[in-house]
Amino acid sequence: MDRVRITIVGGSGYTGGELLRILLHHPGAEVVKVTSERFPGRPVGQVHPNLRGRTELRFSSAETLAPCDLLFLCLPHGETARRIDGFLSLAPRIVDLSADFRLKDPADYEKWYGFAHPRPDLLGRFVYGVPELHREAIRRASLVAAAGCNATATILALHPLHAAGLVGERGAVVEVKVGSSEGGNAPSPATHHPERAHCLRSYKPAGHRHQAEVLQELGAKGPVRVHFSATAVDLVRGLLATAHVFPNEPVEEKQVWRIYRQAYGDEPFVRLVKSREGTYRYPEPKLLWGTNGCDVGFEADPQGGRLVVMAALDNLVKGGAGQAVQCFNLMHGFPETAGLEFPGLHPV
Amino acid sequence: MDRVRITIVGGSGYTGGELLRILLHHPGAEVVKVTSERFPGRPVGQVHPNLRGRTELRFSSAETLAPCDLLFLCLPHGETARRIDGFLSLAPRIVDLSADFRLKDPADYEKWYGFAHPRPDLLGRFVYGVPELHREAIRRASLVAAAGCNATATILALHPLHAAGLVGERGAVVEVKVGSSEGGNAPSPATHHPERAHCLRSYKPAGHRHQAEVLQELGAKGPVRVHFSATAVDLVRGLLATAHVFPNEPVEEKQVWRIYRQAYGDEPFVRLVKSREGTYRYPEPKLLWGTNGCDVGFEADPQGGRLVVMAALDNLVKGGAGQAVQCFNLMHGFPETAGLEFPGLHPV
Amino acid sequence: MDRVRITIVGGSGYTGGELLRILLHHPGAEVVKVTSERFPGRPVGQVHPNLRGRTELRFSSAETLAPCDLLFLCLPHGETARRIDGFLSLAPRIVDLSADFRLKDPADYEKWYGFAHPRPDLLGRFVYGVPELHREAIRRASLVAAAGCNATATILALHPLHAAGLVGERGAVVEVKVGSSEGGNAPSPATHHPERAHCLRSYKPAGHRHQAEVLQELGAKGPVRVHFSATAVDLVRGLLATAHVFPNEPVEEKQVWRIYRQAYGDEPFVRLVKSREGTYRYPEPKLLWGTNGCDVGFEADPQGGRLVVMAALDNLVKGGAGQAVQCFNLMHGFPETAGLEFPGLHPV
Amino acid sequence: MDRVRITIVGGSGYTGGELLRILLHHPGAEVVKVTSERFPGRPVGQVHPNLRGRTELRFSSAETLAPCDLLFLCLPHGETARRIDGFLSLAPRIVDLSADFRLKDPADYEKWYGFAHPRPDLLGRFVYGVPELHREAIRRASLVAAAGCNATATILALHPLHAAGLVGERGAVVEVKVGSSEGGNAPSPATHHPERAHCLRSYKPAGHRHQAEVLQELGAKGPVRVHFSATAVDLVRGLLATAHVFPNEPVEEKQVWRIYRQAYGDEPFVRLVKSREGTYRYPEPKLLWGTNGCDVGFEADPQGGRLVVMAALDNLVKGGAGQAVQCFNLMHGFPETAGLEFPGLHPV
Repeated sequence: MDRVRITIVGGSGYTGGELLRILLHHPGAEVVKVTSERFPGRPVGQVHPNLRGRTELRFSSAETLAPCDLLFLCLPHGETARRIDGFLSLAPRIVDLSADFRLKDPADYEKWYGFAHPRPDLLGRFVYGVPELHREAIRRASLVAAAGCNATATILALHPLHAAGLVGERGAVVEVKVGSSEGGNAPSPATHHPERAHCLRSYKPAGHRHQAEVLQELGAKGPVRVHFSATAVDLVRGLLATAHVFPNEPVEEKQVWRIYRQAYGDEPFVRLVKSREGTYRYPEPKLLWGTNGCDVGFEADPQGGRLVVMAALDNLVKGGAGQAVQCFNLMHGFPETAGLEFPGLHPV
Repeated sequence: MDRVRITIVGGSGYTGGELLRILLHHPGAEVVKVTSERFPGRPVGQVHPNLRGRTELRFSSAETLAPCDLLFLCLPHGETARRIDGFLSLAPRIVDLSADFRLKDPADYEKWYGFAHPRPDLLGRFVYGVPELHREAIRRASLVAAAGCNATATILALHPLHAAGLVGERGAVVEVKVGSSEGGNAPSPATHHPERAHCLRSYKPAGHRHQAEVLQELGAKGPVRVHFSATAVDLVRGLLATAHVFPNEPVEEKQVWRIYRQAYGDEPFVRLVKSREGTYRYPEPKLLWGTNGCDVGFEADPQGGRLVVMAALDNLVKGGAGQAVQCFNLMHGFPETAGLEFPGLHPV
Repeated sequence: MDRVRITIVGGSGYTGGELLRILLHHPGAEVVKVTSERFPGRPVGQVHPNLRGRTELRFSSAETLAPCDLLFLCLPHGETARRIDGFLSLAPRIVDLSADFRLKDPADYEKWYGFAHPRPDLLGRFVYGVPELHREAIRRASLVAAAGCNATATILALHPLHAAGLVGERGAVVEVKVGSSEGGNAPSPATHHPERAHCLRSYKPAGHRHQAEVLQELGAKGPVRVHFSATAVDLVRGLLATAHVFPNEPVEEKQVWRIYRQAYGDEPFVRLVKSREGTYRYPEPKLLWGTNGCDVGFEADPQGGRLVVMAALDNLVKGGAGQAVQCFNLMHGFPETAGLEFPGLHPV
Repeated sequence: MDRVRITIVGGSGYTGGELLRILLHHPGAEVVKVTSERFPGRPVGQVHPNLRGRTELRFSSAETLAPCDLLFLCLPHGETARRIDGFLSLAPRIVDLSADFRLKDPADYEKWYGFAHPRPDLLGRFVYGVPELHREAIRRASLVAAAGCNATATILALHPLHAAGLVGERGAVVEVKVGSSEGGNAPSPATHHPERAHCLRSYKPAGHRHQAEVLQELGAKGPVRVHFSATAVDLVRGLLATAHVFPNEPVEEKQVWRIYRQAYGDEPFVRLVKSREGTYRYPEPKLLWGTNGCDVGFEADPQGGRLVVMAALDNLVKGGAGQAVQCFNLMHGFPETAGLEFPGLHPV
């Protein structure tokens, strides 16, 4: 089998590093080029120290970009949209990991990102990259916009309930707890270790941009309200979304089980996690470090007429590079789990 | 000034250790006895290693209990209620740190704790120990039930809003994130370091007992719904309560500021924390480690008609021993901050 | 190719979990049975939560042990030696992960473990399982004693220097820093999260048992003194050995490079890590979490006539289950890296 | 009693923050000014968030410096020496927290710091600020150079042994493990949380500058060799020095106890920590967070003819601002423990 010839544009960040980690061991992929404007000429293993000795690849400048089979784009938000024509001329398929083509409505970019999208004409051509929702469209897609990490967890937590009409009029209150790698690899006073360590910090109690993706994706099944807050915790990787939902009518636990089993029973990367005993009774992000899994669980609060749904994932994998590779596998007809078999560690 | 002669019953746990740390440096207190059934005869510094060289005290068995001025009771829930007559005969004043006398309605003990309270006649005699709500009653009280940690944070976050009629019909969704010291000092599989480290774990998505205290205290101002969930994070100390509230009508930020300033402007231990810039824009528990402070902040979400309120504290201090000493100070006419001046550390 | 039929005896601990994680994805292995006396009948994924949904295996009692191709033994020290005859009758090959057959000299068991070895006759039949030292012997072995984690790191740090005659008369001072998973999965007061978190704790300043293995293995090349201390740090996985060596004569850095390159240049799991710049200039354990790698680096201290050598690894993988599988690969003629390709994560 | 009027020069860093925390609660000190060139005009509580609501002080520019009773200087190394004449004209007493006046021999600055000291004439006038060694000189001093954190721990670990002639010809191998606050508050790639978290990192295996202070201070009692290495661990505060010493002749444990008791028995801030059982058998830095204590312990290794000595402290307190205040107390005749009574937290 010929390997798919891949270029990673903007490969020196955390997402680029994860793409490299996964693709270097992927049976159907060959990374032919990886660009970085900060580190041209530098061996990949110097920038991504886990890959020392694993590859001879060096970073190139974007000036050297050449035609290939597929581009993974890991550029800062705004940059991809600005340079999209160049990228389209290089490869028949693109997976973009920025937010630039996730939203369908240009007005949403003005509202949530405060920027006038330069290429609204292309928004409709990108498929939103959550395979659990858009598997068939991704298989046929040439352009995929990989989903945001918080959005992926929130969508996977709520989508089945919403589709079943169980998210009541009051919508969902979603509190996402996240690790520090979500912010990328640029140092700042807030990410300085003595400040960021031991943190339990509301960093975005309202107005988080990923909310736009959630509303768009759940909204396809009818109007929905999502009240979103994000809190930083002392982890590097990992994200737990806790969604509080108030169905219009009381719901039996059995019914909820059925809904989630129907939605995810055949999914290769979503597990239902809910036990009566033991330490890990609900989804726990650390068990998913390095994996492409999303664990989903729930608990009913009959007294309060509430359903609490949790979804955990690794923000850099299922919330980033891993889900992008999952889309790539679908686009190219590989087994969906190719390159994504790592089961995670315990204890960790 | 004569020092108040104090006995701590059940002093080998984390709360007992904090009481000792605070009271050994309190200008008006003299700890004359501290009991422990596990470590009778053992020097206090062997069990609470921070106190090595700070005191000559040794633990005694409860059999040696003798009359004194005030008892701090740090016994497992259920134990205090069972032995209360003995304690009442020993001292004119008691501060109980268990949950046994926090609730007024015996039915609440059956509902939330599953136990038939043996002394419902006494429930009305204990004052609920949150000075910000019951300062005058505590001054006059001979019996105080120190509040739970999650309850204290939630109450301090919501009380001013609720009193102002701003917690709408939908009530509040409260998500509390807590460190491991909340669970006490008994090892278990779930608290084993390799399991508890890096955790981000829904440990009580619904049905948490502290909810009963919150409902009781807020309910005094009219009916209220509180939807409570607790998540364990990788901290030893510290608790952040995030409350999502949906006022019936839009609220201006100014108005919220005014409400909280009015409620807490003169409080010695509650700070309003809300900045537009910097790393610490909202309440952050780690800054409060070892202090009796509770930091409260908020953010409006105009798009969602939501108000997000955060309250942070150290679960063992303002959520435990510190607040108990604050009550003690009021009961004995000491300055309210006596022994509680530690300002917290940064960085940490 | 027929898969090797494997039984894991004592599979509910951390080492057993790692063996399962690795072997379930190993192309040449089939785990036909895994025993646990604590959890007979329980699905493996309930005890090792990372493996939920990855296997249908359930734990069995040791009473059900049946013949197979190879046994991995993960029993408490002492237990293997006591039951060895039974195990020998079950499989032609055994890899023992306890300390029971690591030492050649029965007197060493009395000295370091304080126990009279019940089967000194068998000590000579086990090959010490560090492939970098005993590759050919392991290939031919039917019995392998997988090495201890601290010992593996110390041996890999010092062996090339010692073989080159550069560990002077004064020997080496070795300080090992280790995470909490080294202690296994049994909760205790010292491993309770509030106590073990943030620790920086001399737990074995002198007299550590792994020293015996180090002396035996290095001693094969002539007498050596090793002064060993172990300090616990706030990690779950990971171990860094820092060895301070005082060569009899000044050594050039180039010479040291040459020695290590010659020793490890072709090794699949040992990397030399030493850079002039960057964050990861020397070996760093976290980059090796989940991998079978051991990173080795060094720095000369010309002023002090000292050579500082560092070796990092994951105590549960290269210091445990991974190295055991590496030995298994050699014993069965598989590629040495089979099942052990995971490159590690960054950031983490 | 009139309070001593204090100015802190360079008060926006971590050491400045600690000085403020301590001095704002010191019965004999009044901080009249604190300078910062980065934050002139800014309230102290905005930069040191633990001090919000604790002081009305604002930062001033150094241009506004005015005469006062004592200056604490917290400037970057090199800066103090350059501006020393100006400072000398402002106050009769100075405590300098930089390295600029710690060493007596100008040649040491060239050797260890690579800089030609601009004012070698003043080196002899500063007293090295470790009260346990120079109490009487500090009492009489007008100029004190507060000691480095690693140096303080190493000196307190080794000084009694060295004075007793028990550090043999081979000297001491000292491995110091440190938290991230030691590096100050400037963000960098290496201190970015995703990189610095979980670290176990040789950052200075040889050539650490604090070694110069150690050699100077121990050298006063005769020649000594100290082989020093520093490893970064995942803590914010805290430092553990482990010193391996090889006495020329076998030493009894009793004798070592006697030596340390004699040296530190009356010291207000040094505790001897050595127990046969329990979790905290040796010095543990986390118990000292926020305190001015230094815990010292030891263990004999009779097999190896070695003595292992450990010293723990909080690098920002006993290794920084706290020790500076201890010197200040001595210089002004306050009780040595004034402002430094905080006993530390447990659990933490």
